[in-house]
Amino acid sequence: MKDKLNELKSILAEVHDLNRAGAVLGWDQQTYMPRAGAEARGQQMGTLGKIAHEKFTDEKVGQLLEELKDAYHPESDEFALIKVTRRQYDKSTRVPAAFVAEQAEVTAAAHEGWVEARQKSDFAIFEPHLAKVMDLTKRYIGFFPKAEHPYDTLLDDYEPGMKTAEVQAIFAELRKKQVRLLQAIAEKKQVDDSFLHKKYPEAKQRAFGEKVITAFGFDWTRNRQDKAPHPFCTSFGIHDVRITTRFNEKFLNPALFGTMHETGHAFYDGGFNPSYERTPLANGASLGVHESQSRMWENLVGRSLPFWEHFYPELQAAFPSHLGKVKLRDFYRAINKVEPSLIRVEADEATYNMHIMLRLEIEIAMVEGTVALKDLPELWNTKMQEYLGIVPPNDAQGVLQDIHWSFGGLGYFSTYALGNLISAQLWEKINAEITDLSAQIRAGKFDALLGWLRANIHVHGRKYEPQELVQKVTGSKINPAPYLRYLETKFSDVYGL
Amino acid sequence: MKDKLNELKSILAEVHDLNRAGAVLGWDQQTYMPRAGAEARGQQMGTLGKIAHEKFTDEKVGQLLEELKDAYHPESDEFALIKVTRRQYDKSTRVPAAFVAEQAEVTAAAHEGWVEARQKSDFAIFEPHLAKVMDLTKRYIGFFPKAEHPYDTLLDDYEPGMKTAEVQAIFAELRKKQVRLLQAIAEKKQVDDSFLHKKYPEAKQRAFGEKVITAFGFDWTRNRQDKAPHPFCTSFGIHDVRITTRFNEKFLNPALFGTMHETGHAFYDGGFNPSYERTPLANGASLGVHESQSRMWENLVGRSLPFWEHFYPELQAAFPSHLGKVKLRDFYRAINKVEPSLIRVEADEATYNMHIMLRLEIEIAMVEGTVALKDLPELWNTKMQEYLGIVPPNDAQGVLQDIHWSFGGLGYFSTYALGNLISAQLWEKINAEITDLSAQIRAGKFDALLGWLRANIHVHGRKYEPQELVQKVTGSKINPAPYLRYLETKFSDVYGL
Repeated sequence: MKDKLNELKSILAEVHDLNRAGAVLGWDQQTYMPRAGAEARGQQMGTLGKIAHEKFTDEKVGQLLEELKDAYHPESDEFALIKVTRRQYDKSTRVPAAFVAEQAEVTAAAHEGWVEARQKSDFAIFEPHLAKVMDLTKRYIGFFPKAEHPYDTLLDDYEPGMKTAEVQAIFAELRKKQVRLLQAIAEKKQVDDSFLHKKYPEAKQRAFGEKVITAFGFDWTRNRQDKAPHPFCTSFGIHDVRITTRFNEKFLNPALFGTMHETGHAFYDGGFNPSYERTPLANGASLGVHESQSRMWENLVGRSLPFWEHFYPELQAAFPSHLGKVKLRDFYRAINKVEPSLIRVEADEATYNMHIMLRLEIEIAMVEGTVALKDLPELWNTKMQEYLGIVPPNDAQGVLQDIHWSFGGLGYFSTYALGNLISAQLWEKINAEITDLSAQIRAGKFDALLGWLRANIHVHGRKYEPQELVQKVTGSKINPAPYLRYLETKFSDVYGL
Repeated sequence: MKDKLNELKSILAEVHDLNRAGAVLGWDQQTYMPRAGAEARGQQMGTLGKIAHEKFTDEKVGQLLEELKDAYHPESDEFALIKVTRRQYDKSTRVPAAFVAEQAEVTAAAHEGWVEARQKSDFAIFEPHLAKVMDLTKRYIGFFPKAEHPYDTLLDDYEPGMKTAEVQAIFAELRKKQVRLLQAIAEKKQVDDSFLHKKYPEAKQRAFGEKVITAFGFDWTRNRQDKAPHPFCTSFGIHDVRITTRFNEKFLNPALFGTMHETGHAFYDGGFNPSYERTPLANGASLGVHESQSRMWENLVGRSLPFWEHFYPELQAAFPSHLGKVKLRDFYRAINKVEPSLIRVEADEATYNMHIMLRLEIEIAMVEGTVALKDLPELWNTKMQEYLGIVPPNDAQGVLQDIHWSFGGLGYFSTYALGNLISAQLWEKINAEITDLSAQIRAGKFDALLGWLRANIHVHGRKYEPQELVQKVTGSKINPAPYLRYLETKFSDVYGL
């Protein structure tokens, strides 16, 4: 069996290398590539993806997986490797190559259509593309065994093992209480955050961000930070993980919290068990668990009072004319300002999940066929009114704002909200175990926190499914209660509820 | 035949994509990669190389090449593509995979050995590694049909079609006259270049270099410049070509002339016929021809008086305290200072070729087996005395200075000298056709020069062998006379001979 496992591993290592090489090309494309390089880069990434797919879906892989199925103890890493690989193999081989090619073509056109539609703020331009994407989505679902709900198949691509009914149950509990919290906040006097919207020079923003993430434990011999128009984190191996940042010189928040956010992702990708390198276990458990790591550093740490008790004097020293006279508490309230807004990616902690719920409900309706595509703008606006009390003035700021549907990424959105919930659930557990965590953060010390995350989350990579991992670490499955407690405590303080 | 050609081209396109992807990974490794990423990067580059080799040496490629052998007119691009591909296919398939793997292992160890030997300045540490490299080199030669001289096989990897006897004949003519020139210079008063060895801040060096290469025609929408410890030029496609630069804050020359040098390479790689993209024709004709392009911009343009008549006031303005009082002619003489020195990569135009000849003679003796490896340091030092009148105080500054033998790169060195010769030979031709070229350069105009190079050299890519190309463009094969004329004219002026 050892020989067969090694044979499997050597195929997986090549596939992994090809995928990581593709990631390097993608990183360069977003950071440094001169404009004229785009066409060749697309071809190169296409070739790497094609060869990786061919090698991974080779019959030999299926055969080895079958032979190794019962060879190892269910708790072992070997078992997990075989299970996770089988899962991916099954997905990759069920979908015919011709379908993948058709999908690539349709979504390339749909992306163009979406860009134009958003630019002209006209959903009608995107609608025929979306119809094709939905047709593909339904055919995609058809390649898999019938699930409890057809949306399960989509969700499973991002949150292994997660069911639509589970997400709906979680969101149902969340919705009611989060809407009530927002109503309470709306009755209070709004906080002033005008001093965050001043000229903040990029170089100083960058220097401050570097200090913060260095204190977090960002290791510059294994990590990098570069600039990109859309911030992201990418990994070329457990020991080479990179983040990117977009600087806005007219607003302090985006780069500051974006840098902490991507650093949370980077810690995860850089914390897998080194023995998982070049295997499918060298991945996060799911997008939701990944997002829990980024949200924790961005929000639970980075938007907390203890954090700023430590760092605020340094920030003031960096920007004395804007912040010199702003008191810590006013700064803290400003960075935690709650304001229902139209655009998901700009939403604050208290409203963010509402954007997600709206999308989840619409996607499920699209998959069930209970909404006509032409009615989407209206449905969107109705739900915005219901959940956030505001209505987009046009499609560009409404139903057309996200790129996801144009690439067929249905099932993706809920991972963002799940990440928020998991982050708070872990946070309660961490605080129970590291009882002086607030004091540590107030002292600018993050090693115990990072150590806990490494030992309890990061090291496991993709060994456990998200529900399994959360259960193992916190004693219960994903549960919205800790996040609701967190929101209520925090915003009661910020808004004096 | 059209179908077969397309089938061949689609395989070659994938191989090309894999190789270009490998180049992106290599570029990142030298520019931005965090230290800890090295191991995974090595594996990824190894995997890309292995798959590219497997795909290229597939029997199908051999079969298609055989079928297409006589299908196209000898002047056509298709014929050239098939010829160049056959040549490479023949080389790649003659050498067994097991040998390539052994070579990778031996040279990895030899590289380590060389680093240690150079550090300790002890040739004895490197000698056993070099013995293994030479054993491999001789076995490598054995995979090919017997040539006039065994060294031909090595040379042919870098200069397609070139024979050892040709290079020896060229160098024999060069040696006598170049030694005589050096003796004449040595009798003259040395020029003062002390003002070049001052503190030149990196940012200002960089800004000036950018101005120069932008004037040359470096197109920032298709090109980039980054920093690297060892400067190089690399290409990810005809429309994405990048150079790197090393800055020395204590000496103006390295970054200044290095930037122009790499830009010459970049023009070549970015100037191939676009229809050659993703084929083996999207390459320089040879390393020598490639070097002729870099040397031309570095030396024939960048170290010329007309060039500095235009740019010197701007350089003075950038560094007024160092150069404000230095006259143009004194600056011009300083950047053309001739001084026999120990290290090849630091050698000036008048001594550079001597370093190459010495290496060529030693390599030929190694291949012929007429020198014992243990005697190399002594042989090296004897030749240094004979050609340059100086003797290295230790092996590190002598026989151990170059990396090439540690990776088995015998046959490589002469391409540097051939590049010098070709650059001068082309230069005479260009000046005959663009009769006011000096005046154009004096006016800071380089478009006619670049246009000529594009139309006569760059566009052809690898279509012609180097001798063929030089013959086609200048009317004669590679010939040392123009370079000797150039050296004599220039240094008679600089040194008042």
